[in-house]
Amino acid sequence: MRIACCQIAPEVGELERNRRLAAAAVEAAAARGADVVLLPELCASGYAFRDREEAHRLAEPADGPTLTGWRELSVRLGIVLVGGFCERAGDGRLHNSAALVEHGEVRAVYRKAHLWDRESLVFAPGDEPPPVVATRAGRIAVMVCYDVGFPEWVRLAALEGAQLVAVPTNWPAGTLPAAAPAAESMEVLRARAHASASRVFVAACDRHGPERGTTWVGGSFVCDPAGALLAGPPADRGEALVLADYDPAAADDKRTSEHNDALADRRPELYGRLAAS
Amino acid sequence: MRIACCQIAPEVGELERNRRLAAAAVEAAAARGADVVLLPELCASGYAFRDREEAHRLAEPADGPTLTGWRELSVRLGIVLVGGFCERAGDGRLHNSAALVEHGEVRAVYRKAHLWDRESLVFAPGDEPPPVVATRAGRIAVMVCYDVGFPEWVRLAALEGAQLVAVPTNWPAGTLPAAAPAAESMEVLRARAHASASRVFVAACDRHGPERGTTWVGGSFVCDPAGALLAGPPADRGEALVLADYDPAAADDKRTSEHNDALADRRPELYGRLAAS
Repeated sequence: MRIACCQIAPEVGELERNRRLAAAAVEAAAARGADVVLLPELCASGYAFRDREEAHRLAEPADGPTLTGWRELSVRLGIVLVGGFCERAGDGRLHNSAALVEHGEVRAVYRKAHLWDRESLVFAPGDEPPPVVATRAGRIAVMVCYDVGFPEWVRLAALEGAQLVAVPTNWPAGTLPAAAPAAESMEVLRARAHASASRVFVAACDRHGPERGTTWVGGSFVCDPAGALLAGPPADRGEALVLADYDPAAADDKRTSEHNDALADRRPELYGRLAAS
Repeated sequence: MRIACCQIAPEVGELERNRRLAAAAVEAAAARGADVVLLPELCASGYAFRDREEAHRLAEPADGPTLTGWRELSVRLGIVLVGGFCERAGDGRLHNSAALVEHGEVRAVYRKAHLWDRESLVFAPGDEPPPVVATRAGRIAVMVCYDVGFPEWVRLAALEGAQLVAVPTNWPAGTLPAAAPAAESMEVLRARAHASASRVFVAACDRHGPERGTTWVGGSFVCDPAGALLAGPPADRGEALVLADYDPAAADDKRTSEHNDALADRRPELYGRLAAS
C-alpha cells in the first residue's frame, strides 16, 4: 500500500482555487500509485480566519462542494482520501473537521477535539474520540493537528485497532526558526514518539505558504510503527508530495521484545487519574 | 538549580565496586555544583542477571548498604540523590526500584511498574504510580527506564504536579547501530516528546559499558518543558557527567499559546478507555 501526503499552500478565502489545487495534488498522488491520499487541515477554506464571521462564510456542511468533490475523486481514482475542511454543522456551529472518503462515500467525519490557540474563538470542539475506519488500505484513524500532540488521543486510536493514524494538519512554525529542518520540530517528534509508543503508522499532511503572517512547519511525513521516518518531512518545508509504502498489518504486531507488547504492557488499572473529569 | 546525570558503567555482581564507582561520580557531580544527582537503574547490582537467583543474591532492602550510602552522601554533599537499586522486599519479592534520598532520608522508593523483557522473569512489577516528592530542588517524580516510554506515566506525574521527571535507566541499544548518536534513539525522542506534551523537565540517567552481551544507548540527557535538550546525550555514548541548570518553576507554566494550556486542554471526559481495566 502506498500513502501520499500533499503538502500544498491553500490561501484563506479562496475556496475554488484551493479546491482545484487540492484536486490537482490528489490526481498527481494517484498517478504515482497512491492508495491513500492525505490533504492538510482546512484545505479548502484556508486557516488564518480574521474572525468567526469569515470562517462561517467559508464553512460548508459535510455534503457541501468540497466533500462532494472528494467523493468523486475517490471513485474515479480508486483511492482513500483524508483531508480537513471547515464544517458548518446542522446546529450552525463550526467545527475544524476532517473527512475520510472512500468508494464515493463519506466514511467518517471527525471534529477536532483539541483546539489550537484562536481556533477556540471560531470552532466548537468535537466530543467524540478519533474514528477508526476499516478501509481497503487498512484501519485508518483520523485526527487533526494539535490532537496528535496529545498522547491520549493516539493511544485511544491504537486501542481501537488503528493501523495508520492519518493527520491533516496546519502546524504553525511558532518558535521554529525558518532555517530549521522540519524534522527537528517538536510537532514531528511528538507524533513519531506517539507512533512508536503504540506501534502504529502515522502520516501527517502539513501545509506551506505564509497566510496573514502565519508560517508553517511544513512537516508532512510518514513514519513506521517504530517511529522511524519512511518519508518526509521535506527539507525545504515547501511544496511536496510525500510518498511512502507501508504494510498496514505490520502495525498489528505490538511485540517489542520476547516478553513485551506495547499495548498489553500498559497498566490501565493504574491510569485512573488520566480519565477523571 | 543544577542537575547532574552520572553516566557510569556498573558491572553485574560487583556490588562493592559499583557502589564506590557511583559514590565517586556523585561526589564529582556535587563538586560541579549539582543540587540533584541521578544515577542509573540498578546501579549497585548491575543489570544483566543470569536468573532470578543471581538477582536475589545481589538484592537488598531499602535500608541496605546502597541506600545507607546514599543517605550519607545526601547529607554530606547537600544534594538530592535519585538512583536505581535491586530491591528485596519484606515479602521476598524482588523489585526494580529507584529511591529519592534527601537530607539523609529515603523520601521515596518507587518500584518499576512496566517491566522490560526478561525483567519479568526476575522482578515483580510495582503497583503504585510514580511518586512526586517536594524537594529543595523542586517537585521531582521518579520512574525507571521503560516506564518513561509510556505516555500515561509521564502524564500522571505531571498531573500530580511534578516539575522534573527523574529517570534512572538502562536503555539497551536494541536495534540502534553502534555508530548512531544516542540523540536519535527513540528512547530519547519518546522521553523528550512526553516532556513537551506535559511541559515538565525530564532528566534520564543511562549507563554505558557492555554487560554479558548487552550494550546501551548511553543516552543520558536533560530536556526542558518544551522538550529541547539542555544537556546530553553525550556524543560518544560513554562515561559522562551530564550537567544542566534549570528553574523548576518554569514547569508550572503550562501555557503554549494565548489560548492553550498543555494540561487544561486535555479532554479527560473522552479518555475513559485509557483507564479501563
